[in-house]
Parts: sequence; C-alpha cells; structure tokens
Amino acid sequence: MRISELSERSGIAVATIKYYLREGLLPAGERTSPNQASYSEDHLRRLRLIRAMIEVGGLPVAAVGEVLAAVDTPELSMFKLLGVAQASLSAPTSVTPEAEWDRAYAIVRAEMDRRGWDMRPSGPAIDTLTSVLVRLAQLGYPAWGTTALPSYFDGARTIAESDVAAALTAGSREEIIDAVVVVTVLGDTAVAAIRRIAQAQVSLERLASGAPEQQVSDGG
Amino acid sequence: MRISELSERSGIAVATIKYYLREGLLPAGERTSPNQASYSEDHLRRLRLIRAMIEVGGLPVAAVGEVLAAVDTPELSMFKLLGVAQASLSAPTSVTPEAEWDRAYAIVRAEMDRRGWDMRPSGPAIDTLTSVLVRLAQLGYPAWGTTALPSYFDGARTIAESDVAAALTAGSREEIIDAVVVVTVLGDTAVAAIRRIAQAQVSLERLASGAPEQQVSDGG
Repeated sequence: MRISELSERSGIAVATIKYYLREGLLPAGERTSPNQASYSEDHLRRLRLIRAMIEVGGLPVAAVGEVLAAVDTPELSMFKLLGVAQASLSAPTSVTPEAEWDRAYAIVRAEMDRRGWDMRPSGPAIDTLTSVLVRLAQLGYPAWGTTALPSYFDGARTIAESDVAAALTAGSREEIIDAVVVVTVLGDTAVAAIRRIAQAQVSLERLASGAPEQQVSDGG
Repeated sequence: MRISELSERSGIAVATIKYYLREGLLPAGERTSPNQASYSEDHLRRLRLIRAMIEVGGLPVAAVGEVLAAVDTPELSMFKLLGVAQASLSAPTSVTPEAEWDRAYAIVRAEMDRRGWDMRPSGPAIDTLTSVLVRLAQLGYPAWGTTALPSYFDGARTIAESDVAAALTAGSREEIIDAVVVVTVLGDTAVAAIRRIAQAQVSLERLASGAPEQQVSDGG
C-alpha cells in the first residue's frame, strides 16, 4: 500500500510516519519509483505498536527504538524481551542522602529475600520503591515499609500474574509488547482507582458498624 | 509563638502562611497587638497537614478547604471523613460516547456486585476505572476488564486493608488524614513500582524455565 493508505489505516498522519521512517523506528518500504514506496501489513502492525509506545506508554523515541530492536532480535528470549519493555516503562529516580537510601533499600531487599525474589530483572522499579520509602520516612512514616510491604507485595503479585498472563496470550512478539505497554501504563491508572474503591469498601466495613475505631480522639 | 517561629518550626515561608490565613485554611492566631498574633501547637499541626495535602497530595486550595472543614466537624463520622479525603485524591475523567461508557460501566458494576461492594462511597474512582476500560477497548482490548478485574480487585483489596489499618492507627483526626493523603499518593508510586517488580518475577518464573511459552511465533 502507499503511504497515504498506511496513514489512513493506522490513523497516523503522513508527516508523522515520515518522521518515524527518518528516525529508523519504521523500516523503509519497498521502492516502486524514485518518489514512491510500497508498505505492507507488517508496516501497519509496526506503526500501531509505535503509536502504543509513544501515545500510551509516553516513551521517548530512543526508548521506542530500543524496544523495537529487542522485538526484531528473534534470538533474544521472551524473558529478556519482556524485561526491556517493562524497564522502559519505569520512572526515573532522584538523589538522596546515602544513609537514608541504604536504610530504605535494606527494607526492600529484606522483603524480596523473604520471598526469594530475584533482585536483578526489575530495572529501575526497585530504586523507585526505595525512593518512596525514603520520602515516607522524611514525612514521618519510617516504619511504613516494614509494616506495609508484605501486603503490597502480595497484592501486586496477584495483579502481576494477570498482567503477564494477558501479555503472553496476546500473540506475536509485537502484539505481546503492545499488550505489555498498554496494560502496564493504563493498568497503573486502573490499579490506583481500584485501590481507592477498595479503601472505601474496607473503610465502610471497618467503620460503619459502630466498631471502636469510630471513637477517635482529636488531641495531638 | 509568633509567625516567625511558626514558619521556622513548620518549614513553611511566612508569606505562604499568610496566604493560608487569607484563604481560611489556617485559623487566625490570637491577637496580642494590632500587628501581631500568637499561634499555638494546634496551628503548627494544622500547617503540617496543609502542607501534606498541597505538596504531597497535589490538592488545590479549594479541596484542602473541604477536607479541613470535614476534619473540624467532630460530629462527622470517621467513615465520612475518610471518604472526603479519599475522594479528593481521585483523578477527574473526560467525555466518552455513551454506548462505550455504558458497556465499560456494566463490567465494573458486575465485578462490584459479584463481591457485594457498595458502589456509593468511592467518589470519582469508579468513573476513572470505567474510563480506563473504555480506553483499553478503543486500543483493542475490549475483554481486558472481564478477564483482569477479578485479580485486580483481589490484589487492590489486600493493599487497601494495609492502607486503612495504617490510617486508623495514626492518632488524631488530623494525623489520620495526613496518613491518608501521604500513604494514598506515595502508595500509588509504590504500588506501580512493586507491580513492575512482581511482573518481572512472574515473567522469570514462567519463562526462564524453558516452558512452552518461550516459543512464540512472529507471524501476525
């Protein structure tokens, strides 16, 4: 198909497709004349994946290129391919005093070790979690990690099993990565919303029955 | 104490404290002369809560005022007080075609009904979740809600039980609301990070053992 049809069927502007071609995200089409190229269904599929990564995943072009390179390396195992995609979706971290960082990191590490989880494949996520524990300690909640991480890890594991199952049943390598990007990013919003729904439900169950928690002092 | 000491002990600039006084978020101090007022430990506690809501919770001033009004209404039950705070931390939603919205909403409602959860107290969170299902359907995942919500609700419930327990053991009404704001907002980042850690762990367990899932076709 010509680039105009590729644009129409993908919903992406011709100028944007040309940008992706220049950046090497989309392979060149087959030259049919000096000014025209012909594109295939593979190009259409690739375009949809690029759009998912950029518009849903919010990934910068360089990260998209890295993920696509992994998709296009058939000898790269599925495990490593998923790891590249998952790592590209994690948020970066900021600088913290070393003692505070080490304290927080030890709590995360203890929880991972307790479960026998591998510390290596999570990319920046362990650092992000450590940052949260540092921030909570600064705000007056130094014990939150020790108290809450068991429940958070249990709950997140249940959710993650659904996510990995959804990804692995998605089809081709490209469809799998599309699923990883879309489900991970939109899933964050879903998890946050359902957590609030569940907080309201748990509050209702604990408090609306006249239990002792309803009497709370206002003194400091 | 004078406003300068209030500023020093709270870490909030005098100009900002005066802004909070003008907006009615902070009650006036006791007048000791035409140009000076005296502030108490209650003012200091209130300032810390305001800062948590604005800087951590990202709440606009109007929402902070609503939550503080609820804190200051002793006859308002703990359940309703938590509800006001939790609702203020949910994201707003955008406009969607009605048929798509109704389809997505029916899936959310079915999951809530299956568990016997109350639809009413969650504020905007149910709408946010419905929006996510609409978006996923538009991106080619119309069945995600039906498939994934049971696991998501189970996992989020486990996390929410930790959150509500942490809030209710925090102390005074103000300390409870501080805990709700801080744990809910920073908890979102923690949940997202731990979900990625868990995805990596589940992927490792499913794929690194030579299981059939490792053979995936690249055809469409």
